[in-house]
Amino acid sequence: MEPVEIRWVRDGPPAAEILVEGLPGIGHVGKLAAEHLIEELRAVKIAELTSIHLPPQVIIEPSGVARLARNEVFLHEGEKRIAFLVGDYQSVSPEGHYHLAEAYLDIAERLGVRCIYTLGGYGVGHLVSEPRVLSAVNREELRAGLEAAGALFNPDEPPGGIIGASGLVLALALRRGIDAACIMGETSGYLVDPRAASGVLAVLSTLIGIGVDMSRLETRATEMEQVIAKLAENETAEDDEALRYIG
Amino acid sequence: MEPVEIRWVRDGPPAAEILVEGLPGIGHVGKLAAEHLIEELRAVKIAELTSIHLPPQVIIEPSGVARLARNEVFLHEGEKRIAFLVGDYQSVSPEGHYHLAEAYLDIAERLGVRCIYTLGGYGVGHLVSEPRVLSAVNREELRAGLEAAGALFNPDEPPGGIIGASGLVLALALRRGIDAACIMGETSGYLVDPRAASGVLAVLSTLIGIGVDMSRLETRATEMEQVIAKLAENETAEDDEALRYIG
Amino acid sequence: MEPVEIRWVRDGPPAAEILVEGLPGIGHVGKLAAEHLIEELRAVKIAELTSIHLPPQVIIEPSGVARLARNEVFLHEGEKRIAFLVGDYQSVSPEGHYHLAEAYLDIAERLGVRCIYTLGGYGVGHLVSEPRVLSAVNREELRAGLEAAGALFNPDEPPGGIIGASGLVLALALRRGIDAACIMGETSGYLVDPRAASGVLAVLSTLIGIGVDMSRLETRATEMEQVIAKLAENETAEDDEALRYIG
Amino acid sequence: MEPVEIRWVRDGPPAAEILVEGLPGIGHVGKLAAEHLIEELRAVKIAELTSIHLPPQVIIEPSGVARLARNEVFLHEGEKRIAFLVGDYQSVSPEGHYHLAEAYLDIAERLGVRCIYTLGGYGVGHLVSEPRVLSAVNREELRAGLEAAGALFNPDEPPGGIIGASGLVLALALRRGIDAACIMGETSGYLVDPRAASGVLAVLSTLIGIGVDMSRLETRATEMEQVIAKLAENETAEDDEALRYIG
Repeated sequence: MEPVEIRWVRDGPPAAEILVEGLPGIGHVGKLAAEHLIEELRAVKIAELTSIHLPPQVIIEPSGVARLARNEVFLHEGEKRIAFLVGDYQSVSPEGHYHLAEAYLDIAERLGVRCIYTLGGYGVGHLVSEPRVLSAVNREELRAGLEAAGALFNPDEPPGGIIGASGLVLALALRRGIDAACIMGETSGYLVDPRAASGVLAVLSTLIGIGVDMSRLETRATEMEQVIAKLAENETAEDDEALRYIG
Repeated sequence: MEPVEIRWVRDGPPAAEILVEGLPGIGHVGKLAAEHLIEELRAVKIAELTSIHLPPQVIIEPSGVARLARNEVFLHEGEKRIAFLVGDYQSVSPEGHYHLAEAYLDIAERLGVRCIYTLGGYGVGHLVSEPRVLSAVNREELRAGLEAAGALFNPDEPPGGIIGASGLVLALALRRGIDAACIMGETSGYLVDPRAASGVLAVLSTLIGIGVDMSRLETRATEMEQVIAKLAENETAEDDEALRYIG
Repeated sequence: MEPVEIRWVRDGPPAAEILVEGLPGIGHVGKLAAEHLIEELRAVKIAELTSIHLPPQVIIEPSGVARLARNEVFLHEGEKRIAFLVGDYQSVSPEGHYHLAEAYLDIAERLGVRCIYTLGGYGVGHLVSEPRVLSAVNREELRAGLEAAGALFNPDEPPGGIIGASGLVLALALRRGIDAACIMGETSGYLVDPRAASGVLAVLSTLIGIGVDMSRLETRATEMEQVIAKLAENETAEDDEALRYIG
Repeated sequence: MEPVEIRWVRDGPPAAEILVEGLPGIGHVGKLAAEHLIEELRAVKIAELTSIHLPPQVIIEPSGVARLARNEVFLHEGEKRIAFLVGDYQSVSPEGHYHLAEAYLDIAERLGVRCIYTLGGYGVGHLVSEPRVLSAVNREELRAGLEAAGALFNPDEPPGGIIGASGLVLALALRRGIDAACIMGETSGYLVDPRAASGVLAVLSTLIGIGVDMSRLETRATEMEQVIAKLAENETAEDDEALRYIG
């Protein structure tokens, strides 16, 4: 097995103007957002990537069939041609992150992509009632467009920069002459966060100029908030009980 | 030393229809099952594998002779020709797992193997009185055969997929046109579990169509259960004592 | 992406007699000292290095532009031509440290450097009121010069030797016929330490024979000491409060 | 820098019948024993090895000169020609252990070595008043010689086999047609243990047929035992004090 293997599963040379990356990460924000778009736009799978840099693990499909941990590329051919990069995992090693980021850019170049959006979460360590959407770009000229679409740029946010695929793809795209922006949804970082994903998608759909039905993502966000509310309630109840016991 | 080295210890080109993999893992279920078969079928060693991906460690034989940590291939030439892959360890690194899995498949291809069974444990985190046997396959067509032999397929079990050789060999075999199924014995994951191994072997012997004397494995399972019972008793006794002391 | 990539950002063949290395490390002593010199001497950037051995991470500039984690080379062309090696991070893997150290020496050789000073902190685990400056050299003949400039040599200090770039560059420079000395400022190791950096710079400026305005570094050191004093005060105050509470 | 580099520091082709390996490990038993022999036999340095698999670290000599972490080869040319392999560290990575072991055997082959003794400690987790000396060999025929010299062979001791250079060199020597035995001194594993080293040397000197003055090692062992006795006394004293306080 080669260190990184890309298999194209569709005949003919597919093409896309835009690549949206949403691999697993903080709050699974990027993954939730990208997978929601793939479903709503009914994008079709065109490639998959396996690698020794992904965990040495297989996923069992509902059919009982096991397959390697992988990343996948989907294509939506509407008014705009948009490719999506999603997957089970990111690299398990620091060096592997660089190798996979280059492989993602090989895919982008082969598709003729002119612009990449990497989606992710920005973990702040506490629950956020109205999550902001932050951004970073690989050329300063791209900043105004992101701001117009509702993304913020704030010095020192995220304080440590961006770790993993969303960051490396952003920076390495410049070397290949591809514009790229990272769109990050503010999130606690403790829970899968559909609300943050929804914020990221609002910015992204404005940028790309597509309408996306957000209702399913909104439903998931509301459900998640009810779960959190119930957890908080239980904690208070326990506190009450504790008080009664003491009293 | 090459990253992976395979030494064939028997003259002439050996051949096998089936490869059974039972390397160390959760509850040593796969290892116990495969080693029991090797002993009962009096399979003979035909190859051994050493690798820089195995721990940097030697094993001391009862004779006082030290040898490298290794994996071994045994061959049973009965009505069916069955090869077995067993060993001291699996890879110490994520990337190494992929390299070793490919080496195992090189061995399978050289033997002309058509079907691989990877054996393992499925750790559930609590003692299991009647362990189930679960399975995963690399082609959906294989599922019915496994089910007929007594294995279950349950969505989201094991929840995280299969880690290590049993999973990777399963998935990577498909690329070489080799059928493969993983047979997993439910086990606590805390103890070496001959009972789970016995369940795995019941399914495997039905699939291959061989009769295997299970008595020795049953004896070990009974012994292990007596050990556990005694441990549980002692805990209760300690509780009693604690009560007497307090009372 | 190559394992280590060096990009020269200035036309023509730059040259320098001296290379000063100040990468992040204990107390950020080396980094503070080297960056202070770059600013005071208005050195200009001539090269940058990126590598799969650096963390898989991007830094977001105040402009909102993300760039790869990197190391940078600056050049001061005054009476003496002095190059500086600074950067965001050191290697994340043991092997990577060796590869990066060789790359730093490739840069030094290309610049025609005759002498390297690696700057760092020597962590002693407790606050130090009057930090000493210790040194190590790659040829015994260099020792007298360092001592004359105010650096100490003390057997078994630092007890474990020098870890990372400052140490490896020092030792590996010898093989390329380049003189090298490491100048280490004594520091607690718990805090960014401008006072220790100031001590290192005093020795270095004597060695190189340049006058450097230290006032900005002194201001930072004083600020940091006020912060520490306030922290200590608060602790005492808390103790007092605790006493009142108990009393 | 090559992954492993060997530099011969003596002119002409040195030769040795025997190689004694004593790299750092459990209780530094092997290192103490080998270094004692080097000093007593006044062996001279003939080669040194540096490697990216050793820690990325330099050692500062008493002279103030820093040098790479390294392994060294010494040669004693008496009635027998005996080479010694000692050093600062072993490999930091599992794969590196294999690569370094092969390099050690390259050195042995170049010297024409017929027999290797690897020295080490066998950690048992408690203080040992009369430490045994255990052994393992790479050919069963060597066992009688070891036993005659006072080494024991005990099934399942050490229970996990031998980790690192002492084990790998032992096993890999067989492939090169070189006899090898590992001589292990029983030790707590918590402290540097000259007593265990002394036991190992007693066996080794009988095997090689050389007389070695053990007095300096005995002195160190006695000193270490006095330190331990004092530690134990203090603990008892503290217990007494505690009793007085309570009483």
